[in-house]
Amino acid sequence: MKLHGYFRSSAAYRVRIGLNLKGLTVQHLPHHLRKGEQCAPTYLAINPQGLVPTLEDDNGAALTQSLAIIEWLDETHPNPPLLPKDPLRRAKVRAFALAIACDIHPVQNLKVLARLRQLGVAEEKVTEWAAWANREGLSACEALVRGEQGPFCFGDKPTIADLCLVPQLANARRFGVDVAAFPRLLEAEAAAKQMRAFTDAAPDRQPDAE
Amino acid sequence: MKLHGYFRSSAAYRVRIGLNLKGLTVQHLPHHLRKGEQCAPTYLAINPQGLVPTLEDDNGAALTQSLAIIEWLDETHPNPPLLPKDPLRRAKVRAFALAIACDIHPVQNLKVLARLRQLGVAEEKVTEWAAWANREGLSACEALVRGEQGPFCFGDKPTIADLCLVPQLANARRFGVDVAAFPRLLEAEAAAKQMRAFTDAAPDRQPDAE
Repeated sequence: MKLHGYFRSSAAYRVRIGLNLKGLTVQHLPHHLRKGEQCAPTYLAINPQGLVPTLEDDNGAALTQSLAIIEWLDETHPNPPLLPKDPLRRAKVRAFALAIACDIHPVQNLKVLARLRQLGVAEEKVTEWAAWANREGLSACEALVRGEQGPFCFGDKPTIADLCLVPQLANARRFGVDVAAFPRLLEAEAAAKQMRAFTDAAPDRQPDAE
Repeated sequence: MKLHGYFRSSAAYRVRIGLNLKGLTVQHLPHHLRKGEQCAPTYLAINPQGLVPTLEDDNGAALTQSLAIIEWLDETHPNPPLLPKDPLRRAKVRAFALAIACDIHPVQNLKVLARLRQLGVAEEKVTEWAAWANREGLSACEALVRGEQGPFCFGDKPTIADLCLVPQLANARRFGVDVAAFPRLLEAEAAAKQMRAFTDAAPDRQPDAE
């Protein structure tokens, strides 16, 4: 399989963790987002959104959107599972993942921040915007898992929630958010960082890292 | 079951369609988003994000995030299914839904537009921002289903993709986007509007409609 990504993309980072947890090796095809390589017509033909990641399966089918890719991975390679079995628990895990993937990440991604600059918003306010999205979103995430048994977000094994959390915490730090306010999230991150599936997926370990 | 929502929330609208398709009747509990009722401590206790929808199941468990709620509905009430059976087809449907739920809706929601105004962005530019998010995102969605058999987004039955599409097209029109540019999406919307599950879920049919 081939994974179209970018070392710093947190959506690609989620999928890299998922592939590692499933023990799958893929060919990495980096697209430099800051240089606009994701807008090349050949790439748009497989991912009309011009976003990373895209996973090409063994038959060349193109899968887009990190959470759809991870659900597919979990359905086609069930071990180890990335979601609990009980429907209500699955809903809790998915809600946490979506709270990051819908309500934090897209509000602070490259495209939106570039649009803010185009509107004449000062650089300092652009960073404050990104920090706000992370701070507010992660505060809610902390509340979502506060009563959950650890050390991971939902129990003693990583789930899709942890795949979303670890990359987002890295973003939050990059934008200057004081993550000490989220002790339960940091507990989950610390557990994840004990696993090579997570550390090998980190941006600075990727071939296109700068 | 109880659905905490708001007539105009497109995330709540998705869940209303899903409940109708499954033939489930729920008690509707409206929270007036423009008056900030979603930030009441009693509501934050069940939805720390302060967003709608929240579904309370028969046992009082609170489910948040529209797509997590809909996946839970589909797992606990499998007929009619809202996702295909084949993993690759499921990934395509989920990717379309996420392209809306992650990359369009949160970028143009009430909270983000309010933040733009706080930054001193003029009202006309705020509307143009919302239109941009819809236009760009729906263009990609049109490409994602262009080769798919209709009349719905993915075949002859509605899926999670259609549950996300219909509310988003309503938003796009509200922000002045020329939706005639998306003929395949309009075909799917027209098919959906033939079904009472969709029309009964429309904002203007809700008890809190203004």
